[in-house]
Amino acid sequence: MKLLRVGPAGAERPVVLAADGTAYDLSGRTRDIDGAFLAGLDAAELAAAVAAGELPPTDIDGLRIGAPVVRPGKVVGIGLNYRDHAAEAGAQIPAEPVVFLKPSNTVVGPNDEVLVPRGSEKTDYEVELAVVIGRHARYLDGHPEAAAVIAGYAAVNDVTERAFQFERGGQWDKGKSAETFTPLGPWLVTADEVADPQALALRLWVNGELRQNGSTAEMIFPVLEIVRYLSHFMVLEPGDVIVTGTPAGVTLGHPGTPFLRPTDVVELEVEGLGRQRQVLGKA
Amino acid sequence: MKLLRVGPAGAERPVVLAADGTAYDLSGRTRDIDGAFLAGLDAAELAAAVAAGELPPTDIDGLRIGAPVVRPGKVVGIGLNYRDHAAEAGAQIPAEPVVFLKPSNTVVGPNDEVLVPRGSEKTDYEVELAVVIGRHARYLDGHPEAAAVIAGYAAVNDVTERAFQFERGGQWDKGKSAETFTPLGPWLVTADEVADPQALALRLWVNGELRQNGSTAEMIFPVLEIVRYLSHFMVLEPGDVIVTGTPAGVTLGHPGTPFLRPTDVVELEVEGLGRQRQVLGKA
Repeated sequence: MKLLRVGPAGAERPVVLAADGTAYDLSGRTRDIDGAFLAGLDAAELAAAVAAGELPPTDIDGLRIGAPVVRPGKVVGIGLNYRDHAAEAGAQIPAEPVVFLKPSNTVVGPNDEVLVPRGSEKTDYEVELAVVIGRHARYLDGHPEAAAVIAGYAAVNDVTERAFQFERGGQWDKGKSAETFTPLGPWLVTADEVADPQALALRLWVNGELRQNGSTAEMIFPVLEIVRYLSHFMVLEPGDVIVTGTPAGVTLGHPGTPFLRPTDVVELEVEGLGRQRQVLGKA
Repeated sequence: MKLLRVGPAGAERPVVLAADGTAYDLSGRTRDIDGAFLAGLDAAELAAAVAAGELPPTDIDGLRIGAPVVRPGKVVGIGLNYRDHAAEAGAQIPAEPVVFLKPSNTVVGPNDEVLVPRGSEKTDYEVELAVVIGRHARYLDGHPEAAAVIAGYAAVNDVTERAFQFERGGQWDKGKSAETFTPLGPWLVTADEVADPQALALRLWVNGELRQNGSTAEMIFPVLEIVRYLSHFMVLEPGDVIVTGTPAGVTLGHPGTPFLRPTDVVELEVEGLGRQRQVLGKA
């Protein structure tokens, strides 16, 4: 099941997309796709309701797509989670997950404009697999318990300003927090439909040129370990989003390649989770 | 004007405390003290309504006090913002504010139990001045503009696990994110009643022993500069909380002094902003 939110920013309505591509209006079941809805979501039951014709079809052609979760309680980031990216960043392979946070108000729709911050000369992209949490979670024992708290997956661009991240005090959050820095979606694909989150191709293009071309198979810490690990340092809640790290190919790792500038076009896709397209603008 | 929330966790109701100590029920004006309420708050108008007898008195004796803002959109932290604390932490005086984030679900009431995380051996306290944002803010030009977006101030304990902060990858958020790690309150004192946020005494005791004894006069980056600065890296929103750094005296700076353990009692106060008392427990 694919869940999404369509309509103007701040006034999206919830939709479910069936396997045949037909969209059905979810407004009769929930006002929005938020933590409370995800906490109560039974993907099999919803699929059955769709199959039984209990939800009205809805035309979403040409509508803006919002992020598939409205204002997460938190957005947690994992750094240096691919060997090739750690290498290009000149960093050691981490012994355990490196954790940072992004403000929830950085989350925008998958095709919304991304703004280069004022004073920025090093705005960079990062295609990633996002995990959306569906259950309250603390001190999870192992990977089966971690799997049980995952609502689903989405594509994400963890936009980052490298000078703000590395050259302005050393705490990465400063480079992860600008408005529009977390395009999420187009869909939340429920966990039951992602056979193996560790076998998804990730690709990203800038102005049509392929820059990142990896696979979640190359993660140092796989999704279930990330979720288990994080639950020992913070309480995860329904609607929380985890951005799980990026493979090689970011601008940071290619001296001489220009960073993102207004009018640049970033496109990305995560296998099975859809495609994003952002035109860069100016803050 | 002092704003607070009283009642069981998750079911608090909003209250305003007049200068003479009488509490008035705010429920007729707002369901809760959140970003939307703060965005529309006119402190002078509210004070006039209280003086005119428009709000019903309410008895709050013996009731639990919650955090004075319900679930902030984000909690932003400033690190090493007092020279004496930077020195005791063995760090350089920062050239510009060091910025980290805490998950919003770390916020609890001022007298709630604080839980030592599992596996923690270095849970530490930090008495701080918290700033509560009242207006949407991005790219503020200067200090007058920063002053205009501040709703008020509160006392806060920026509880931190030092091993998680410094020894587990280097990004501080990992040591700032555990449940109960941000006791806030007892009150939000509106900005009009804080004559000078840079002249407030800060004190903290552990088991009755004075450990921190500083003043916001000693901040490296004062409140207005912090708010202006942050607005160039992220969009601040009504209800957001900024914890502005701690003076010397934390356990980190005193080798041989034990870190916090279950049954320890932490008390703190910020001049004019009230007092907190936490008994430590076990996660």
